[in-house]
Amino acid sequence: MAEALVLAELGLYSTHPNPCVGAVLVKDGFVVGRGAHLQAGKPHAERFALAEAGHAARGATAYVTLEPCSHQGRTPPCADALIAAGVARVVIAMRDPNPLVAGRGVERLRAAGVVVEEGCLAAAAETLNPGFLQRMRHGRPWVRLKQAMSLDGRVALANGQSQWLTGEAARADVQQERARASAILVGIGTVLADNPRLAPRLAVAPRRYPVKIVLDTHLRTPPDAALFGTPGEVWICHHQNAPNAAQGALRAAGAELLSCRGTGEGLDWQEVMTMFAQREMNDILVEAGPSIAASLFTAGLVDEWLLYVAPLLLGQDARPVLVTGPYVNLAEVPRWSVINTTQLGDDIKWTLRPQER
Amino acid sequence: MAEALVLAELGLYSTHPNPCVGAVLVKDGFVVGRGAHLQAGKPHAERFALAEAGHAARGATAYVTLEPCSHQGRTPPCADALIAAGVARVVIAMRDPNPLVAGRGVERLRAAGVVVEEGCLAAAAETLNPGFLQRMRHGRPWVRLKQAMSLDGRVALANGQSQWLTGEAARADVQQERARASAILVGIGTVLADNPRLAPRLAVAPRRYPVKIVLDTHLRTPPDAALFGTPGEVWICHHQNAPNAAQGALRAAGAELLSCRGTGEGLDWQEVMTMFAQREMNDILVEAGPSIAASLFTAGLVDEWLLYVAPLLLGQDARPVLVTGPYVNLAEVPRWSVINTTQLGDDIKWTLRPQER
Repeated sequence: MAEALVLAELGLYSTHPNPCVGAVLVKDGFVVGRGAHLQAGKPHAERFALAEAGHAARGATAYVTLEPCSHQGRTPPCADALIAAGVARVVIAMRDPNPLVAGRGVERLRAAGVVVEEGCLAAAAETLNPGFLQRMRHGRPWVRLKQAMSLDGRVALANGQSQWLTGEAARADVQQERARASAILVGIGTVLADNPRLAPRLAVAPRRYPVKIVLDTHLRTPPDAALFGTPGEVWICHHQNAPNAAQGALRAAGAELLSCRGTGEGLDWQEVMTMFAQREMNDILVEAGPSIAASLFTAGLVDEWLLYVAPLLLGQDARPVLVTGPYVNLAEVPRWSVINTTQLGDDIKWTLRPQER
Repeated sequence: MAEALVLAELGLYSTHPNPCVGAVLVKDGFVVGRGAHLQAGKPHAERFALAEAGHAARGATAYVTLEPCSHQGRTPPCADALIAAGVARVVIAMRDPNPLVAGRGVERLRAAGVVVEEGCLAAAAETLNPGFLQRMRHGRPWVRLKQAMSLDGRVALANGQSQWLTGEAARADVQQERARASAILVGIGTVLADNPRLAPRLAVAPRRYPVKIVLDTHLRTPPDAALFGTPGEVWICHHQNAPNAAQGALRAAGAELLSCRGTGEGLDWQEVMTMFAQREMNDILVEAGPSIAASLFTAGLVDEWLLYVAPLLLGQDARPVLVTGPYVNLAEVPRWSVINTTQLGDDIKWTLRPQER
């Protein structure tokens, strides 16, 4: 199963909107087949492993990181393929919470006389697909909030200067985070201030590019914004009362416009997140300024906080990383768990998750 | 030499005001003696190694992390002992910048016909004794500034609440930092607000306790402050114009009063640091509030910044870790080098040094 988990990681940047899955076929103590799911519409991990094994699959044990599917999706059901190949035993790390599967793969295998064991390295398998699993279970994407700040918790000088706080290694890491996301989300403020391209810049072109999402209540995105010139779809979320006039030019520039009911005059996080999940967004990387970041925190929708800390001081009048508080009691302040810290050149990357969820 | 460096570390908490030194005697490819300096007034590393080796020292090679002393200090000169024991060759990591030695140990050995080689693992030997070396070279102690802050660079809520930002592991680490310091320095503000004990709390009682220094311009330290009740000397630095009335009670409580000329009405960092060096303080751990910390930064006297970061948010109105700035250009902001990061429970300890010194 450990090898299957490693195989599954091959799909980290490309399986969207499907989960990463790895499979290993073992017979008489030897590995006879290996597979990973690499891209939606392409074969699932089990198919690759069965193809490599050929006749050796008969009587073998399959180790799969996620319950084999039981439904006709973009490809035919894997449970049937395992049965047809004569696999004797299937060990799965976890069930697939996708309501189209959700135990039906296991039932189908058992009904055909295949021995099924569940829960092997389940915790490790969970961490492979936080976005897919959260979307299936709770109908919303896994939200990673990315910010770069100074040691004193500031993102920009008072005059707005903020370019290149962090060094090259940290910026390269951000490109990786972008590439593995289903979508990159920014606010209209960032588009107007920085005119970002929002496509990951990688040494090797990725199999797919993330969707570029702009939260733009009043449709102020310029039709010549840089993000229209880079690979990947552009979605603009606007309030239903936004001016109609802007819509034609933005559609012509290539944007898909998503009208939201919102709350009062603004957008509503719950509504847009539900919409993103319905559109098969698993993981969203939010690259936004302090106010969007703070409102996302307040809504309780930050699942992971990626904090790139540059070892410098921006001073007391500089712009804070988050506009939060005021708090009057230490018992009520938001607390985080440190999932990981990595040194990237001169900078440090913190991966944090909220405590007590 | 690598083994001698490890031996030298045995003295990290106890050699004050002497440097940590390790020595290994090798003869015919075998280690015949090992020594470490453990406490001022007790034998130097070379003496222990020679004692272990006995007659085997004749014709041996001595590896010593610091040039052997040539003067009669608290103990007789080690160069003479090495010569008397018939050691043939001495390999040293670095010369001793102590003006009482500074090459004279090497000269003395060579004059007696001993072969001397210098510079073996010199960089590693440097890191053993930053305080001693800085005091000898520049006449001031090595200053470590210790602070605990939140992710958003705050040290306390607006109402002053700050207790237990960090967890148990981080607080235990602070005790270690206290124990290895020559002195712990706080401002009068900290004494009046928190009434700290300032003695390291360790599972095993240390061989020596650091000096507790209070910067107290106007002699406002209460004679019943908690720091008088813990082991270790108490020094109170005051301005020469401070009221005489308070002096008797403070001396009776056990304090040594250090009168400073200062600048205008306040104390002067250069003056107090020079005084601490003259009083053989190698390493000073500063545990002070944001304003003392900022003035120390401004004076360019922070050699190392120990930053314990707790993964929580104190909010925008909370008290900043440092009152610095304002800056108008990113090119002018203070930048640091990350020497080390360690996870301590839920918290992270950063060890930083200023860039471009």
